[in-house]
Amino acid sequence: MLSQIKPAKQAIYLDHAATTPVRAEVLAAMRPYWSIMFGNPSSLYRQGLQARQALGAARKSVADVLNVRPDEVVFTAGGTESANLAILGVARAYRKTHETGGHIITSRIEHHAVLHACQRLEQEGFAVTYVGVDKEGFFDLEEINKSIRKDTVLVSLMYANNEIGTIEPIVEIGKLIRRVNLERSLLQPTTYHLPPVLFHSDACQAAGSLELNPNKLGVDLLTLNASKIYGPKQVGCLYVRRGVSLEPIVYGGGQEKGLRSGTENVPGVVGFARALELAQKERVRETKRLLDLRDYFIAQVLKKIPAAQLNGPAAVPVKAANAKPNLGFRRLPNNINLRLNAEGEAVMLYLDANNIATATGSACSTESADPSHVLKAIGLTDVEAKSSLRITLGKSTTKQQLAYVLKVLPAVVQTVVGM
Amino acid sequence: MLSQIKPAKQAIYLDHAATTPVRAEVLAAMRPYWSIMFGNPSSLYRQGLQARQALGAARKSVADVLNVRPDEVVFTAGGTESANLAILGVARAYRKTHETGGHIITSRIEHHAVLHACQRLEQEGFAVTYVGVDKEGFFDLEEINKSIRKDTVLVSLMYANNEIGTIEPIVEIGKLIRRVNLERSLLQPTTYHLPPVLFHSDACQAAGSLELNPNKLGVDLLTLNASKIYGPKQVGCLYVRRGVSLEPIVYGGGQEKGLRSGTENVPGVVGFARALELAQKERVRETKRLLDLRDYFIAQVLKKIPAAQLNGPAAVPVKAANAKPNLGFRRLPNNINLRLNAEGEAVMLYLDANNIATATGSACSTESADPSHVLKAIGLTDVEAKSSLRITLGKSTTKQQLAYVLKVLPAVVQTVVGM
Repeated sequence: MLSQIKPAKQAIYLDHAATTPVRAEVLAAMRPYWSIMFGNPSSLYRQGLQARQALGAARKSVADVLNVRPDEVVFTAGGTESANLAILGVARAYRKTHETGGHIITSRIEHHAVLHACQRLEQEGFAVTYVGVDKEGFFDLEEINKSIRKDTVLVSLMYANNEIGTIEPIVEIGKLIRRVNLERSLLQPTTYHLPPVLFHSDACQAAGSLELNPNKLGVDLLTLNASKIYGPKQVGCLYVRRGVSLEPIVYGGGQEKGLRSGTENVPGVVGFARALELAQKERVRETKRLLDLRDYFIAQVLKKIPAAQLNGPAAVPVKAANAKPNLGFRRLPNNINLRLNAEGEAVMLYLDANNIATATGSACSTESADPSHVLKAIGLTDVEAKSSLRITLGKSTTKQQLAYVLKVLPAVVQTVVGM
Repeated sequence: MLSQIKPAKQAIYLDHAATTPVRAEVLAAMRPYWSIMFGNPSSLYRQGLQARQALGAARKSVADVLNVRPDEVVFTAGGTESANLAILGVARAYRKTHETGGHIITSRIEHHAVLHACQRLEQEGFAVTYVGVDKEGFFDLEEINKSIRKDTVLVSLMYANNEIGTIEPIVEIGKLIRRVNLERSLLQPTTYHLPPVLFHSDACQAAGSLELNPNKLGVDLLTLNASKIYGPKQVGCLYVRRGVSLEPIVYGGGQEKGLRSGTENVPGVVGFARALELAQKERVRETKRLLDLRDYFIAQVLKKIPAAQLNGPAAVPVKAANAKPNLGFRRLPNNINLRLNAEGEAVMLYLDANNIATATGSACSTESADPSHVLKAIGLTDVEAKSSLRITLGKSTTKQQLAYVLKVLPAVVQTVVGM
């Protein structure tokens, strides 16, 4: 019985896909830049130089992690802005030299930052194809291939889904797009040259656990942010392959090579760079730890709540999944998404009352009463989607915490079902 | 002789118009929100609620300072973004229901955030009139009045200039626009209703020293940021009068009533709110202190360097200027802009070598070799503009520091002239 269980003394935070606390190393890295080395990086005197050097070092650090050139890293005010800069930026740059809008391919399971930017472009004269996914949330390469048109200018497909953890076959999509671009460059008469299809991927959920090298992934644009990897909120970057033209979304002093005007957030980018560096350094070890915790929890919860089902990819052990091309595994190591026979929001609130933080969907859509567009896209009914619960593990998560949740959750479900 | 003067032991920072250090109270206010109350404000559990409450309290605090409703305050990632949201936002919202672009009035002395946003709108089919200024940098009400056309949708004019400190007659411009709007609503046949002219003002340089109540100023949109008032970089807000429609510039999760998607920068907005609160609380006292320092410096420097001249408004004492409608004085209390008979950049670098930070123009344009557009607009030749130096005082500025600068600067000018 739920009433016999005591709430956890210490908060158990299991919504790391929504946001993460800033880690101590990141806070320490940011510290000198608030009030001591506070200069404007555009200023020519020494305080400006210090800020400029910090910005340069942060850019170099991010570029090193990604294995790209520093001038391909554009700092932004967060993941949403990065994705908007990529999508609106490519489309509006194309529009400058073309009478009509081109064609864009994205998917039905993208974050709203991508979906709503694409919808805006529909108003600006672009055509958008929203590809679907299978029951586990995977894109279909053949569907993507068939969707490519002569006037396709951009494909924007996420690296890993924020709700159900599906790790998409980005490498294969990258290869497909390169093949299309090769054909375009070979087969066309030189007098009428189709621009290459550009490939953007939103990797906000991937930075903590997956390979990020844009050349290995085959992407031209990659969105990353800090607040999902124990860095500060509203800081991120967009990787922009050399030669890719973007129209800015914010105009002004011309910072970030004209792509993101506004005095640079020096402490923020220093913190982001440190967070990314640490995330990638600890990636393999932390991923193994989280996979163990995740698979322990999934196995136990399905046993303890027989009616529960896992939304998203089956949690195949790493070795078996190695045959798959998507870098070792199919589902984010920290993601658990359960379909329960009980209203998800009620379950979430009861868990909160026991000091356990979980989610019903992405944090960005909690104000909307609509069921998750991701869960609908994998074929769930409205009722099924609304009876789902997302649990995302992180650095602070321990087996002890999960054992406690495994005690509370069945009782909560029972209570909610009985209401 | 310059070589006989020892560099200042402690850095003398005199470029507060470029950026300011984060003050201790602001850092303290931000501190709990990095790693303890770190939740996503959109999350429904207690960590989300804490973040949501902090966001709400910050919004209330900013609204209280401005004397407006909390729902009229939109938090953004800085002043450049705020100005872009105002200008692109008003124009693109208009464009949604009109076949052609409307007309916009701005000035030749605006910050690049305003100028370049307007230039972008010219590409999108809008017509833009750039009004001039007199020798002191003041707008001409008659010129603004004459520039208003039937299809004018927006007037964007700055509150105080960042280079020469001119405090513009915003109240009078606001009255003028309200009169135009009254005429529009009275004289037109109801079947063809011209939309009201909206009035945006960039107040980034004004927040530390001027009245900010949008109703007193008569503005519909007001841009503010934190990094000029001892708050963090890349945080700001846009005041948006109820009923004003804006098209967002970034699309996504719908935060900030859909006007600025992306997980909110909770520590940042908490810091901004605290910085603004303190700035306005200390405004009168600090303004008096800065006016004394400024006028002491100007009087002395013109005596010590007979060839020097003041760019921008004559520093009329406060009492005499009280007759003027622009809230008590004509020039920002912290702004000094001198025309010297020596190359400004060389002077600035020699001062830096003596541990004194000053500027030749706004920090945002230091990478450009062009002379300041503001100094050109007040009638300076290229050579005169390039021999100008901006000194902007701040909280840390003391009379002792200025006395030292008054010793160094004449020697520096002599050295540079002799080069």
